[in-house]
Amino acid sequence: MSSSFAPLKNDSFLRACLRQATDHTPVWLMRQAGRYLPEYCATRAKAGSFMGLATNVDFATEVTLQPLERYPLDAAILFSDILTVPDAMGLGLSFAQGEGPKFAKPLRDEQAVAKLEAPDLDKLRYVFDAVRSIRKALDGRVPLIGFSGSPWTLACYMVEGAGSDDYRLVKSMLYSRPELMHRILSINAQAVTAYLNAQIEAGAQAVMIFDSWGGVLADGAFQEYSLAYTANVLSGIKRAGADGQTVPRIVFTKGGGLWLEQMDKLDCEVLGLDWTMNLGKARQLVGHSKALQGNIDPNVLFAPQKVIESEVLKVLKSFGKPHTDLDQPGPTHIFNLGHGISQYTPPDHVSALVQAVHHHSKLLRA
Amino acid sequence: MSSSFAPLKNDSFLRACLRQATDHTPVWLMRQAGRYLPEYCATRAKAGSFMGLATNVDFATEVTLQPLERYPLDAAILFSDILTVPDAMGLGLSFAQGEGPKFAKPLRDEQAVAKLEAPDLDKLRYVFDAVRSIRKALDGRVPLIGFSGSPWTLACYMVEGAGSDDYRLVKSMLYSRPELMHRILSINAQAVTAYLNAQIEAGAQAVMIFDSWGGVLADGAFQEYSLAYTANVLSGIKRAGADGQTVPRIVFTKGGGLWLEQMDKLDCEVLGLDWTMNLGKARQLVGHSKALQGNIDPNVLFAPQKVIESEVLKVLKSFGKPHTDLDQPGPTHIFNLGHGISQYTPPDHVSALVQAVHHHSKLLRA
Repeated sequence: MSSSFAPLKNDSFLRACLRQATDHTPVWLMRQAGRYLPEYCATRAKAGSFMGLATNVDFATEVTLQPLERYPLDAAILFSDILTVPDAMGLGLSFAQGEGPKFAKPLRDEQAVAKLEAPDLDKLRYVFDAVRSIRKALDGRVPLIGFSGSPWTLACYMVEGAGSDDYRLVKSMLYSRPELMHRILSINAQAVTAYLNAQIEAGAQAVMIFDSWGGVLADGAFQEYSLAYTANVLSGIKRAGADGQTVPRIVFTKGGGLWLEQMDKLDCEVLGLDWTMNLGKARQLVGHSKALQGNIDPNVLFAPQKVIESEVLKVLKSFGKPHTDLDQPGPTHIFNLGHGISQYTPPDHVSALVQAVHHHSKLLRA
Repeated sequence: MSSSFAPLKNDSFLRACLRQATDHTPVWLMRQAGRYLPEYCATRAKAGSFMGLATNVDFATEVTLQPLERYPLDAAILFSDILTVPDAMGLGLSFAQGEGPKFAKPLRDEQAVAKLEAPDLDKLRYVFDAVRSIRKALDGRVPLIGFSGSPWTLACYMVEGAGSDDYRLVKSMLYSRPELMHRILSINAQAVTAYLNAQIEAGAQAVMIFDSWGGVLADGAFQEYSLAYTANVLSGIKRAGADGQTVPRIVFTKGGGLWLEQMDKLDCEVLGLDWTMNLGKARQLVGHSKALQGNIDPNVLFAPQKVIESEVLKVLKSFGKPHTDLDQPGPTHIFNLGHGISQYTPPDHVSALVQAVHHHSKLLRA
């Protein structure tokens, strides 16, 4: 089925993922389809709720493509949420107005953990249908990225039942009942692997694992409870899509800069970085084996456009001399924010950022 | 006046700060006088409010000493709040029930920033009076640590007007109007220096700068907007107390592990670390010039006591072989949490932690 998709017109993102030279630094933005866009808010209003938006194939397709209509971005990312997976496990996801996500049935005791199972993928069919629909609607303009939360990040929400600022409940379980935590993480790893493979089968051309809360763990605990399960997922992900093309795998651990040398051993193509990490230092540490994605502070987008341009240039220069040899792989950079874009971002400022990335990254290659 | 204080009976903390050998690893806990202690809650109820507690010399003395009655801690820390300084600058601090701190007059525009001045120290006299009173009440049991927020961390609260999860307002100012941000930080640095010096004159035997929000800055911005102003404060702090003793200076940047090599150049004696940093790696990087303080995850305190003991041992071992040569300085470790203790901590569990630090750190020296 996927082999019937249109040929790709802009492969700069996929090439950079594979450490191949490109004529500019490709750019996309985490949460690029989101509340900062008035057209997104209009579609969401039609859908009635966040989950109404995410579970409707037409709406999900529409909002995924909205940022591409405004900006010459080099990749699209599936519009969805990392919490679809625990929702399909029966934890009862809801998004109350003006608040973050909530689970009606968080995992708080041995009984709840014992009952946990990897979800029937049929309950997530709306996601795979959306991937197929978006890929078709993209018509080869840019590649489509699928994604999932990491086993650990999903476990944070599943145990806390909502966002947290101290991770007290999930860490209490981790330290007090490590065997329960390992059970949750094993099931999550199995679920995430199947979920990403189904996205790949449906047409995702790259996949990204969001380890948004890996950085809250202590040294030692990160390796055991987050990194090991991310590695487990990576070992089970299909290496090629239905069209036979290699599907690059991106791992983003927010706050993971301290563990970069250990993340270098992950069997993936790209490491995402937040704004605390110096890109030049990251390139020295892991640029021989991984492409790097990131890492401008999303708050730069609140500055005047000429500041945005100079901050973009700083990030491009911090990565260093672009790789230009077409005959062999080398260190490559995919421009992105260091975290999701803020809902308060002025849409014009995103134009300035994307333009600056394309313009200056070409000049740096000249 | 300070020279009339009783001689110090337990100097393990001060020795470790100066990289001198001790027979055990000294331990104290950030926010050790706090809401997890029922006796603290009782005193706070008498005081009526958090600021009622902090501004009353007798209450502040009472709560500072409470954890020492329960646990054989090796240092006391002044009971106060980092926001006393901006409060004295006229920003109007309040603590609403069940919420964090709020400023009635946050710094949001050029006019507000133009009017900002370093505070009249007389408005902070209650802090210095508390230092004197606590030092006297301690009667030489353990040394007393004074403290302040870092210029950047204070600026976060002063611009945001409250806690934040995205630091959008303060970073918008930083990127859009860097000259305003530098003005705030210069004034804060001047204020913090005078504030810490007055604490030293009143009897503080060590001082700590809490750069609690340094870690939210981008690489590059951290060096310019946080580290440089911390360095500025350090350059102005008195090197000796009224009794002629060296006053060690501790700098704690939460999330600062990535910048440790740059922090090594700070003119201070101790670097505090959060739980994401491997202590052994930190010792390799900066242990030749700085003592290290930290760094167990406060959530370990929710685990059963035998887990607390094994996690304490892990942290002690991650630092590595204790320095035991009495004739010369060497790498030393002061045990602490990686962040403030949670209000939900069972008090008994703190006993287990302190005991485990003392017991195992002695065994590791044997």
